[in-house]
Amino acid sequence: QMPRGNLETIHHRALVLSQVRKWLDSLKFKDAFECMRKLRINLNLIYDHNPKVFLENVDTFLKQIASVNHINLFLTELKEEDTTKTMYPCQSTTLGTPSAGGSQSKVDTVCDALRVAMETSDPKRYCLSILTSHVKKSKPELEVALQKVHELRVNPPTEKSTVSAEEALKYLLFLVNVNELYEHSLGTYDFDLVLMVAEKSQKDPKEYLSFLNTLKKMEPNYQRYTIDRHLRRYRKALNHLSKCGEEHFTECLNLVKDQRLYSEALQLYPPHSPQYKALSCAYAEYLVEQQQAEQAGLLLWRCGEMPRALQAFVSCCSWRHALCVAAKIPLPPNQLALLARDLAVKLMELRRYTEASVLLEQYAKDCEEAISALIAGAAWEEALRLIYMYERQDIMETDLKPALLEAHSNQMSFLEGQKATFIRHKNRLSVVRELKEKARLELLDEDAPDCPDSELFSEASSMITASATGSKYSHSNSRISARSSKNRRKAERKKYSLKEGSPLEDVALLHALTETLYTVDKLREEVHSLLKALVLFGLDSQAQKLQQDYGEVLLLMEASIPEVWPEGQQQSSVPVTGPNSTANSIMASYQQQKPSPLVPQQGLYKCTWDGCPFPGP
Amino acid sequence: QMPRGNLETIHHRALVLSQVRKWLDSLKFKDAFECMRKLRINLNLIYDHNPKVFLENVDTFLKQIASVNHINLFLTELKEEDTTKTMYPCQSTTLGTPSAGGSQSKVDTVCDALRVAMETSDPKRYCLSILTSHVKKSKPELEVALQKVHELRVNPPTEKSTVSAEEALKYLLFLVNVNELYEHSLGTYDFDLVLMVAEKSQKDPKEYLSFLNTLKKMEPNYQRYTIDRHLRRYRKALNHLSKCGEEHFTECLNLVKDQRLYSEALQLYPPHSPQYKALSCAYAEYLVEQQQAEQAGLLLWRCGEMPRALQAFVSCCSWRHALCVAAKIPLPPNQLALLARDLAVKLMELRRYTEASVLLEQYAKDCEEAISALIAGAAWEEALRLIYMYERQDIMETDLKPALLEAHSNQMSFLEGQKATFIRHKNRLSVVRELKEKARLELLDEDAPDCPDSELFSEASSMITASATGSKYSHSNSRISARSSKNRRKAERKKYSLKEGSPLEDVALLHALTETLYTVDKLREEVHSLLKALVLFGLDSQAQKLQQDYGEVLLLMEASIPEVWPEGQQQSSVPVTGPNSTANSIMASYQQQKPSPLVPQQGLYKCTWDGCPFPGP
Repeated sequence: QMPRGNLETIHHRALVLSQVRKWLDSLKFKDAFECMRKLRINLNLIYDHNPKVFLENVDTFLKQIASVNHINLFLTELKEEDTTKTMYPCQSTTLGTPSAGGSQSKVDTVCDALRVAMETSDPKRYCLSILTSHVKKSKPELEVALQKVHELRVNPPTEKSTVSAEEALKYLLFLVNVNELYEHSLGTYDFDLVLMVAEKSQKDPKEYLSFLNTLKKMEPNYQRYTIDRHLRRYRKALNHLSKCGEEHFTECLNLVKDQRLYSEALQLYPPHSPQYKALSCAYAEYLVEQQQAEQAGLLLWRCGEMPRALQAFVSCCSWRHALCVAAKIPLPPNQLALLARDLAVKLMELRRYTEASVLLEQYAKDCEEAISALIAGAAWEEALRLIYMYERQDIMETDLKPALLEAHSNQMSFLEGQKATFIRHKNRLSVVRELKEKARLELLDEDAPDCPDSELFSEASSMITASATGSKYSHSNSRISARSSKNRRKAERKKYSLKEGSPLEDVALLHALTETLYTVDKLREEVHSLLKALVLFGLDSQAQKLQQDYGEVLLLMEASIPEVWPEGQQQSSVPVTGPNSTANSIMASYQQQKPSPLVPQQGLYKCTWDGCPFPGP
Repeated sequence: QMPRGNLETIHHRALVLSQVRKWLDSLKFKDAFECMRKLRINLNLIYDHNPKVFLENVDTFLKQIASVNHINLFLTELKEEDTTKTMYPCQSTTLGTPSAGGSQSKVDTVCDALRVAMETSDPKRYCLSILTSHVKKSKPELEVALQKVHELRVNPPTEKSTVSAEEALKYLLFLVNVNELYEHSLGTYDFDLVLMVAEKSQKDPKEYLSFLNTLKKMEPNYQRYTIDRHLRRYRKALNHLSKCGEEHFTECLNLVKDQRLYSEALQLYPPHSPQYKALSCAYAEYLVEQQQAEQAGLLLWRCGEMPRALQAFVSCCSWRHALCVAAKIPLPPNQLALLARDLAVKLMELRRYTEASVLLEQYAKDCEEAISALIAGAAWEEALRLIYMYERQDIMETDLKPALLEAHSNQMSFLEGQKATFIRHKNRLSVVRELKEKARLELLDEDAPDCPDSELFSEASSMITASATGSKYSHSNSRISARSSKNRRKAERKKYSLKEGSPLEDVALLHALTETLYTVDKLREEVHSLLKALVLFGLDSQAQKLQQDYGEVLLLMEASIPEVWPEGQQQSSVPVTGPNSTANSIMASYQQQKPSPLVPQQGLYKCTWDGCPFPGP
């Protein structure tokens, strides 16, 4: 139908849609369908208008439409899109009618509903529509469709009116690419079906016939494996190959390794079979390569490969498992002690001192080393427990007390460093913010008369551009104590932006400040435990100093929160995206908002800090 | 000076200020001072104009001003306020001249600087100004001022021109309230001084004379203690009382208890004295009352009160310390075992199963109970370690495996519950948001013609007000498994707002969703450890199901993040504070922004979930 002037067409379509809706509401599908077909209204509307009503009246729809061609037309036009929302919106229906299919695909819902109706009423008559409903699904069910064609061939219909296998296949080929259909016919393992499709294709008969003949000679499971492999359906291939007996196990193992189908393969063999063990070992090897030695160890343990399991557990410091396996081997006592010492060394490298001490104490039977490990790990209470358990009070004076004093002085200088960094960054942040604000005002105020600030501002802008020279802060970073090396590495990654004058220096400063704040806050427990130990040893003045310093740093940080992370920051930075903003300023303000999830909640540090019973004077 | 018409005065003042600044810049303090005094310009400007220059030229200032009265005028007019910023702002000086005093009070800085200058040049001549400089400090140094008056009395000046003690005291009384001065004179412990002030006061001589006579009869330290106590200077009182010998120790102990000066008192006695011990015990009692039994225990341990220390440590489950003290008593083996069992029961009540197992294994020597504790605490690896260490593999079948299966089913149903809650809240949130958006649009669109939505909206608004009836969600909350009882309690506290239709339901839902998300995310480690144990015991299908379910819940939550916590939420809700908004809508939009720090960062859940080596099909 040609448009006959804009106004007329628009009115016409609106009226037509309203009429179509009325028809659909009164279940007059035939009228609606005819009209829509003529006026090229998308047929999806039949379903979309009211999915629930359509699904409840699929039989009525089928009876009214009757024509196989029309049903096919409807099916092929189906799309996931909801036309009541996109092409034909109508205010009164936008709410209250969610799609009836729930999370399932709309196309699948309609295809399945129609197919059920067609198969109940007259499967032979609707044969082609049924095929269409299989092919149109979001995952086309080509094998099922082919199977139905094959049935037609095996049991040709007696009535003349019904479709022959030949016609059905032709129709399928009209819907689906021939090569795809050939592959899927192979997938049914039905050679008659394959031949039927192959004959319709452009393929060379010599080629496919010899391939099919080779296949036909094979043992059924191996045959299916070969087809699956050809079709790259490796899971199915593995399943079939596993049924081909022991002589094919090597082939199976290779398939598993190639396609990494380890866990699938393990499910195909009984847990105590030699194949299961071989597969477990192969899987374990793979997992070790993938840096998952612990899981490898578990698999090896399960299948009785104890020495290899031990190796795997040791390599990933899964020390508890390693000791279990060692007990199961069983390792002689002297070797067990050696193993324990090895593991303890590894754990200490990972700063897991308390675990190392268990190994040294209970397996290497070396309480002295165990206590040393605990002291090195600042696990003061546990160290004391072992000292009293093994009656080694001498260690308190020789090792524990000096370690306490050293930990105290380390903690003090670390806190001092963090405090200095925080203050330096905070001060610099307020300078940078002031400069940026000035720059922003100047941008807004470009035609303002010469004001006394102009001189200052030119200095500010030259600072902003002179990013190459500002190395003062990267220098002072190195003053941070050795314990924050992790933080330093992080800082170095972002050094370019912490540099004085770098364009996003404020963002970098904000990040650095947040990091320092979290670092100091995380010390709480460590400081508390050190304070208790200091008090116990009568080192009251040291405890007092540490408690006071730590409390002061916490207070300083809490007091800085409103200044560093102002509450209204996000709102106030919105106008930056005004007409006078530059790409850089928008970018900067956007980046400035980014760390907001990191903003500590005010009051986080409000809890009373009760480190030790000796408050400062 | 009377104003002679607005324009003239204003011009006059601006010119005057400019002239004063010039004088100050050229160090003509005299001219500046005279002018400012006449025209009532705040004298603070003399310092504020350029603090650095003033402090460097205090001597010049002193020489030029010369008059004691003028100096006193300047000193008494000093305020912390920076007049160049408040009263006499001047653009050219706002930047680049931070106050020279740094963090110290400006008044204190000026007083101290002037006093030093006066005392160097002619202390006798400037006597009254020196007194003023003491009195004006942010913490008035009344004792020092009184001391100086007293010196004048003891060594009367020979020259006639200088001030007498009488005159100085009169001047002081002009600056300071007489009663305050009397109290401070007592604080000098100098009875001559007290009498001198008392004579000037309205006090009854009988009264203060008898008081002073009683004091005079006392031993000096006890005398000072009595005065300090009278003046409520308890720290000083304690200090003096501690020097009064053993016969006053009970009084001392009572003072310490009354004023809670425990830590101060401990510093006044040698650590091994009986007084130190008595004070420690008193402190410990106080700390126990304050729920700080661990600190009490440490104090008691330090001073050798072992049984009481043990009691304190046991009461707060400080089990390692308790064992140390028990070893020091020493407790006989059978009692130690009993103690260990007691502590283990307490620890298990606190869900600290691993610690309980150490007690049971090493002190109660009951490996079976120790393993049970570990199994109850889902510490699978540690349980296995003890099983192999004590060669109790029988426990694996009888206890460990059933516990694993139970943990698995608990975990599964917990996950299911969390998932259901999350989906329910999420769906409800989108409904509530839609209704709120409709309500907002309707407010903006009040004069719009009747539209089909109006019916829906009236329904929505009635839902919003019908908060009393919507109990559907508070019911379904109780379906959450017992393990989330903490979350449930939290939810109950906010039940009013999670109710369907409550005004801030969306905020409550957002909080609930965030909580569920964190709860599920925190399961990571627990699930991982359970998966490993399941795999080890060959319970592959259970492991697979758990891994799959957990992975799905994580995926579901990750996929929901953009919908539940939309990125642009904060910006988009800003227009709510437009002219058409109500107090409620503004409040709601404000509250909606509040939980933003809780918004999980996208990508938090992007790390690969490698629970166990058996991925689902």
